[in-house]
Amino acid sequence: MYCITPKLTATGIPTTYYNLLPDIGVPGSPPLDPATQQPVGPDKLAALFPMALLEQEMSSAVHIPIPEELLEAYADYRPTPLRRARRFEKALGTRSAIYYKYEGVSPVGSHKLNTALAQAYYNREAGVKRIATETGAGQWGTALSYACRTFGIACNVYMVKVSYHQKPFRRTMMELYGASVHASPSQETSYGRSLSAAHPDHPGSLGVAISEAIEDTVTHPGTKYALGSVLNHVLLHQTIIGQEALAQLDTLGVFPDVVVGCHGGGSNFAGIAFPFAKHKANGKEIEIIAAEPASCPTLTKGEFRYDHGDTANLTPLMKMYTLGSGVVPDPIHAGGLRYHGAAPQVSELLARGMIAARAYPQGVTFEVARTFAGAEGIIPAPESAHAIAAAAEVAREADAAGKARTILFNLSGHGLLDLGAYQDFLAGKIK
Amino acid sequence: MYCITPKLTATGIPTTYYNLLPDIGVPGSPPLDPATQQPVGPDKLAALFPMALLEQEMSSAVHIPIPEELLEAYADYRPTPLRRARRFEKALGTRSAIYYKYEGVSPVGSHKLNTALAQAYYNREAGVKRIATETGAGQWGTALSYACRTFGIACNVYMVKVSYHQKPFRRTMMELYGASVHASPSQETSYGRSLSAAHPDHPGSLGVAISEAIEDTVTHPGTKYALGSVLNHVLLHQTIIGQEALAQLDTLGVFPDVVVGCHGGGSNFAGIAFPFAKHKANGKEIEIIAAEPASCPTLTKGEFRYDHGDTANLTPLMKMYTLGSGVVPDPIHAGGLRYHGAAPQVSELLARGMIAARAYPQGVTFEVARTFAGAEGIIPAPESAHAIAAAAEVAREADAAGKARTILFNLSGHGLLDLGAYQDFLAGKIK
Repeated sequence: MYCITPKLTATGIPTTYYNLLPDIGVPGSPPLDPATQQPVGPDKLAALFPMALLEQEMSSAVHIPIPEELLEAYADYRPTPLRRARRFEKALGTRSAIYYKYEGVSPVGSHKLNTALAQAYYNREAGVKRIATETGAGQWGTALSYACRTFGIACNVYMVKVSYHQKPFRRTMMELYGASVHASPSQETSYGRSLSAAHPDHPGSLGVAISEAIEDTVTHPGTKYALGSVLNHVLLHQTIIGQEALAQLDTLGVFPDVVVGCHGGGSNFAGIAFPFAKHKANGKEIEIIAAEPASCPTLTKGEFRYDHGDTANLTPLMKMYTLGSGVVPDPIHAGGLRYHGAAPQVSELLARGMIAARAYPQGVTFEVARTFAGAEGIIPAPESAHAIAAAAEVAREADAAGKARTILFNLSGHGLLDLGAYQDFLAGKIK
Repeated sequence: MYCITPKLTATGIPTTYYNLLPDIGVPGSPPLDPATQQPVGPDKLAALFPMALLEQEMSSAVHIPIPEELLEAYADYRPTPLRRARRFEKALGTRSAIYYKYEGVSPVGSHKLNTALAQAYYNREAGVKRIATETGAGQWGTALSYACRTFGIACNVYMVKVSYHQKPFRRTMMELYGASVHASPSQETSYGRSLSAAHPDHPGSLGVAISEAIEDTVTHPGTKYALGSVLNHVLLHQTIIGQEALAQLDTLGVFPDVVVGCHGGGSNFAGIAFPFAKHKANGKEIEIIAAEPASCPTLTKGEFRYDHGDTANLTPLMKMYTLGSGVVPDPIHAGGLRYHGAAPQVSELLARGMIAARAYPQGVTFEVARTFAGAEGIIPAPESAHAIAAAAEVAREADAAGKARTILFNLSGHGLLDLGAYQDFLAGKIK
């Protein structure tokens, strides 16, 4: 047994966010202004984010208290379940024990709500009446729409046009939550209008949608911007996942040998991993693995250097693993993992060898997701399927070495709005 | 406070099914053989169902123990949450308290899994290797497919052809769970083949699919048949919902004034209502309401008489509220409520005035579902939206009378695979 005492409420929800880097004495690299190459201060970003979130972004406090009202909003779906996947273990034929933390029980179906609620709350506290954001396939936009509704804020979502038309269901969810959803490029911004005029059939891109959301923010008084991953404060909010998992495993007398999360921008990975990484820093033997798509191998094949966070090069430079901000990853079904960069904090840990990364081809992830679905009933999001692929691989390796390991992975969301992708997989169209 | 001590495991799952009618001394009316008009004995049905389920069908025991292995399967998703819908109350502007029991957290997304797991378990115990069933839009087929996978039984699903092609996502789920899914009328049975030959474009119907599943069962050794609602043993399995809710409310010191469930065949309604109906029979003041579609008003406008359970008139005669077995209800989105009849046990209670029924037009149910989704985050299944409509109406009536009531409804499933219907609603196509 280990001395693990995360602060939990009576119902088992952590009452503080956990800030790993200051706790283990690892300095982060500050974002730089591309014009001056100097660190960007909070004042420069104050047009986009409320001060409380900027303070979290740069905080050196180890534990950041979660306000009561926000805890109550979390209590609608948290603590999320931690389960042992016994039938999945049996289907794999492994001697290892595989546990998963299931974030798909959130009303919007993924971990994204953890930070969406926090961001909406701190914006409401700052008197913000309206938030603009971008979304690709719609996971983040859905979460923010519901969070804004919860805290009485108008939500304006720029959704990549091709997804807006091809994947209308998440748009329907956003609209049910009362958000305004615009196909991007839109007629709402001058950038969108000029782009539409020049290219009437422009399919849109995340880069274009970010540009529109930022223009919307700076041209509308009382409006702020929100981002669903990458930034320090977003990772911070997600650490409630790992803190809960740690406490839940502790009640079973279990501490994992391996912790796995899928990796796109880094928020769900950090959420499950950071509370465990503390123990690794303190000398505990534990392997922490980020699982990414082979077609977007940011951590396994990218460079660790300063780069822009967006494709339009509007954001400050961040020190991170990157494939290059101009790279457009293949249109795989795990849209949430199609990001050229990585969270700076995750990148820092990888560069220091505190975590490892593995990459998986799409077909491998769907195959293991099918096995998991048949065994446990839950249809995994294609993103989460990457974490399952890594967990299964680690179990196989342990079996081959005659060992039994205890593996924990984060099932970041369900795939009930991705059944079209599974249909393609069953029809043999995904290899 | 009331003396309510349902038997619960340490983790809060009931350890017995609750058999209301024998407990309150209400005799049921037996099913009749249409040829002889005499009660059908278990031997006649033994070709279709394993003996353990037939014993439950006719049991006079009040508490029927749930076997350990089945409890473990339930523990994957039970106890399901019981929550107070505070933001929904606020959105309605009501003084009443509204609680809901949420069955959508089951991996297949609805309460159907409660009986599917039980039926698969008892079939496995009886040595059954293969189960045939029918499904309309796919809720039941999905639940049974997963349950069969869990207990190592092959599952053969006849899915109404028009749904098979128009609603492919539940088919994809069934196939991920390893089931064989056939568009009905199919080439698998002589009835299906003859129908297809005569009408190559036959769209199928639930009646046809039942006929195919029954033919499949009696022509394949080691195969049994399974039904997702109406029958006594199905209702019995669902009583774990109400038992849990009773215990969960009790921990809050709450006993409801009103209990609501939506009503199609009757299983989710009985599941939430029967454990509370016992208290009504014992003199407690409690109103129990079944909410049904105005377009399929079985309980509010049907007759209480013996009728066939299927449209092809293959089943025994059951004494129930019915619109007539030849009636084809409008193709509303709440496909699970499109049934001409009602569970005999529910019908018996309605005829004795122990429960009430109310009917709602489709547009009203989608409107209230939108309000609920915006307030609580969960997108309700169109079926469950009928229960929400009744809960909201009761709250409004109480407000008008200057009273505050405590209302409990069963949110039997989520609507994440029904977002196309919500899209139509938002586009003004559903009134």
